[in-house]
Amino acid sequence: MGYNTKLRSFDSVVKKYKTVFLDSFGVIKNYAGIIDGVKESIADMKTQGKDVIVLTNDSSKSPKKLAENFEKIGLVGISEKDIISSGMMALGFLKNKITKGRIAYIGTKESAFYVEEVGLPTISIADINLDDIEDISALVFLDDEGFDWQSHLNKTVNLLRHKTIPVIVANSDITYPTSHNEVNIATGAIAGMVEKISKKKFIHFGKPDSQMFMFAYEQILERRKLDRNEILMVGDTLNTDIIGGNKFGLSTALVLSGNTSENQMRIYIRSTGIIPNYICPSIAMNTI
Amino acid sequence: MGYNTKLRSFDSVVKKYKTVFLDSFGVIKNYAGIIDGVKESIADMKTQGKDVIVLTNDSSKSPKKLAENFEKIGLVGISEKDIISSGMMALGFLKNKITKGRIAYIGTKESAFYVEEVGLPTISIADINLDDIEDISALVFLDDEGFDWQSHLNKTVNLLRHKTIPVIVANSDITYPTSHNEVNIATGAIAGMVEKISKKKFIHFGKPDSQMFMFAYEQILERRKLDRNEILMVGDTLNTDIIGGNKFGLSTALVLSGNTSENQMRIYIRSTGIIPNYICPSIAMNTI
Amino acid sequence: MGYNTKLRSFDSVVKKYKTVFLDSFGVIKNYAGIIDGVKESIADMKTQGKDVIVLTNDSSKSPKKLAENFEKIGLVGISEKDIISSGMMALGFLKNKITKGRIAYIGTKESAFYVEEVGLPTISIADINLDDIEDISALVFLDDEGFDWQSHLNKTVNLLRHKTIPVIVANSDITYPTSHNEVNIATGAIAGMVEKISKKKFIHFGKPDSQMFMFAYEQILERRKLDRNEILMVGDTLNTDIIGGNKFGLSTALVLSGNTSENQMRIYIRSTGIIPNYICPSIAMNTI
Amino acid sequence: MGYNTKLRSFDSVVKKYKTVFLDSFGVIKNYAGIIDGVKESIADMKTQGKDVIVLTNDSSKSPKKLAENFEKIGLVGISEKDIISSGMMALGFLKNKITKGRIAYIGTKESAFYVEEVGLPTISIADINLDDIEDISALVFLDDEGFDWQSHLNKTVNLLRHKTIPVIVANSDITYPTSHNEVNIATGAIAGMVEKISKKKFIHFGKPDSQMFMFAYEQILERRKLDRNEILMVGDTLNTDIIGGNKFGLSTALVLSGNTSENQMRIYIRSTGIIPNYICPSIAMNTI
Repeated sequence: MGYNTKLRSFDSVVKKYKTVFLDSFGVIKNYAGIIDGVKESIADMKTQGKDVIVLTNDSSKSPKKLAENFEKIGLVGISEKDIISSGMMALGFLKNKITKGRIAYIGTKESAFYVEEVGLPTISIADINLDDIEDISALVFLDDEGFDWQSHLNKTVNLLRHKTIPVIVANSDITYPTSHNEVNIATGAIAGMVEKISKKKFIHFGKPDSQMFMFAYEQILERRKLDRNEILMVGDTLNTDIIGGNKFGLSTALVLSGNTSENQMRIYIRSTGIIPNYICPSIAMNTI
Repeated sequence: MGYNTKLRSFDSVVKKYKTVFLDSFGVIKNYAGIIDGVKESIADMKTQGKDVIVLTNDSSKSPKKLAENFEKIGLVGISEKDIISSGMMALGFLKNKITKGRIAYIGTKESAFYVEEVGLPTISIADINLDDIEDISALVFLDDEGFDWQSHLNKTVNLLRHKTIPVIVANSDITYPTSHNEVNIATGAIAGMVEKISKKKFIHFGKPDSQMFMFAYEQILERRKLDRNEILMVGDTLNTDIIGGNKFGLSTALVLSGNTSENQMRIYIRSTGIIPNYICPSIAMNTI
Repeated sequence: MGYNTKLRSFDSVVKKYKTVFLDSFGVIKNYAGIIDGVKESIADMKTQGKDVIVLTNDSSKSPKKLAENFEKIGLVGISEKDIISSGMMALGFLKNKITKGRIAYIGTKESAFYVEEVGLPTISIADINLDDIEDISALVFLDDEGFDWQSHLNKTVNLLRHKTIPVIVANSDITYPTSHNEVNIATGAIAGMVEKISKKKFIHFGKPDSQMFMFAYEQILERRKLDRNEILMVGDTLNTDIIGGNKFGLSTALVLSGNTSENQMRIYIRSTGIIPNYICPSIAMNTI
Repeated sequence: MGYNTKLRSFDSVVKKYKTVFLDSFGVIKNYAGIIDGVKESIADMKTQGKDVIVLTNDSSKSPKKLAENFEKIGLVGISEKDIISSGMMALGFLKNKITKGRIAYIGTKESAFYVEEVGLPTISIADINLDDIEDISALVFLDDEGFDWQSHLNKTVNLLRHKTIPVIVANSDITYPTSHNEVNIATGAIAGMVEKISKKKFIHFGKPDSQMFMFAYEQILERRKLDRNEILMVGDTLNTDIIGGNKFGLSTALVLSGNTSENQMRIYIRSTGIIPNYICPSIAMNTI
């Protein structure tokens, strides 16, 4: 974990690892589609017998849908079972802890997929009547789309004034990129505003929290026996992918194909003290 | 996870569970020694074949030492391997991620036990010379004792201005009780002040973080196969024991023998939205 | 500043003061109109020759409009020059510091009144084209209405990624009541979310900041000579009205006709350490 | 308030202003004494009939003592009445609001000067007996020296658990420089840790809070009539001197002789959005 900001070619790094965890946005794809050289890189890793697992703070779609989307944009080799999403963590919580009542959600109908698998009736914040909340047993933030921010966030604040229920944030991200130089406010920031207003403690899932890393690690252990430091976590964001990977004991590689540019990288590492083991331009092979 | 603040007798709650995770301070013991009825309660659970694991945010001593201390105050049946501490988590991180250099620590010589097991030279912040920090490879907050707060915290801030290294907080607690109505500032608060001043991101271990629960769960899985919701997490603090247990998918019981009194309990649950499955006076059996 | 939570009748308190500063919402009026006994109380104070000044964290309307609204609901004696709003503070800043370009605002056309008085062209965030922001010289948060939260807050975040400009928050309130048991998210909370996302330092106006108290004090000094502790600040909120008044050196009275109920009052004072000099049911006279 | 990071010579900037507010540390002096060219620059400004006022977040000494210290290091022309310190603001609060009991303080005997002027008995945290706190009526943080951090900050936390009293922070600074590349933790950071632990709301004085600017402005108004934007605020720190000056409506100049280097300056302005009107190497004349 020396502090060295020299850029290395991804192939020179990945050859030491049998299992690779990849963040999705900024590593595999961006707003414009698959990142250059990624298709070939993933195929290469698969050929070499490496396990490739995607760890994504995406709770807007099911892993099945995420896998279909990868296929649609031409990426092969990432199936449903290779994807671990923060939405799955939220689903696990709901299954374990919420056994009755209706589960309220903030997001699209598609994102509510998770909630439905729990086997309880669900209701969008859009459809909630504040005079009929007796049986609401939990609230889940799933997506930044699918509801009217002004009226439905106001309704959410009042719901939490009237009912003491667990609140789950299925995606802790603050923003997500929508073009080369623009972002959208993400679920984590919206939930954060409501949490601050209501002064409650919400339950947050997603990187950098250990739970997703642990879940992916357990999944890998069913396929092969390996130590944490035999796994390489690759991400474009220091304060989710890299600090989370470091804390869990994985080797970490920062790639410069997403959130973090080469210029910013040195400043960010120095100012945060979050140190990746390696820095690569992207996961494309032979790029240096 | 219904919202019900009725007090129940611990025996009526625990009979549904095969494995019990216990917080230490405020559940098993307090500033005055073992809490009334705890000795008998733990013996009972053992007799009934339940696994009892202690989860403690204590990084000032090794589990071996913690077990010896339990024995000294007359508690039997809790051996070294039944104790999971946040210090062990920090140790795991150091072993996995720090492979060279000297590890600096803030705490007593006794707390430095963890650091020594890593197999690297260690140095107390008290002994560091800021002109000779080239090979310092990590810094660990272990204890609130064993150093001079003024001169050595100032030295810590300057160390972090000069070196970009990972900083580990082995105990996230803010205060710990020292008598019926008094507390001391704990490691987590001290580290939090330094983190804010240095604007870095430290790596925090200890409840409510999932990692300790996961570690305890993995340990239990080696003894017997069981589901998360077959485990009861018992603690005296909503925002470490209970929210952490809930998030990990355990059943949770708040006890009123420590940090949280019966009066405060209703206000705290309502204002935080952290809801235990059960509330008991203490882990003493047949108390209601 | 003794710590005494006995309720007193407002007339027994106010008789010691020549000048009274009143918060508006929760003190003079609420969601249902003028609070009982307030009309008579203000008339009484005026008759006794006291100065009555309204200090409000309202930047959605001009003081002129606020005065008209008081008149409409039947309150006499509060004219435009008796009202100090956080919007006026923001206007003062803009006049002093922004001398060219267009001023962008978030709020209704009515709230943009402030911006227009500066004498520069203004533009609603709704109408901004991110490709034409060269001459945008400041951004002001004025109201929680008048724009589409989702699309225009996303646009705001991107505006601040592209332009380094001062951002002014003309109302720091987090929520405002809309009925007996419901609130809306206020400008301060929305601006706070954007500030956190953009990692900039916004300039916040409104109680508890000293600037509004100072402005009101200066206005009073033009009418009569008096010391700060001859002024009584009356409010329904500890962490804006009371802490701000205390810090500025005024005597303070908490009223229980708004945000803070009698039950909560003791808990809040104890937990925050914000201590009003007096506590009254409302500003109605002879109520105890 | 255009965004322009070109460096200008201080004499070309200051000639437009009749009154100059100067931060002390990093502008007038540093750890090594008076900054080069400052003696001559202040003499020049005086000769030209400008008012020079020092605004300092220093509560460790009285303005009289601060003036004596300036004289000792060879700076003439700054007398006691030209110095406004955050300690004076705290003193004003105590005089206005605390009328009985004993005032507890954290700091040196010298810093307690402020407290003594109030005319009430004072007591150092070092000397407080927690069994005899009935008549403690306020607590003031004055200095980071003069007490034992570990034992006396623990005592402070317990004092605030037992007594609901106003807590005043007379210096909000987080660190202060002690050499070219080293800092000490300052009063503001220590008080911040205790505030977070005790969950109370402390009353903070010092830049960037408006109160100090207002106090200096009122003092100037007694000497001559002038508008806020005829005053130049000069400081080395964006988030105290510059944002505070901007908010109060003053023109602002950032100097690079203290906390902020030329390299950092561009990054800091961009990342915080705090924009000074001018940037100068130092207050030395004719330096560019």
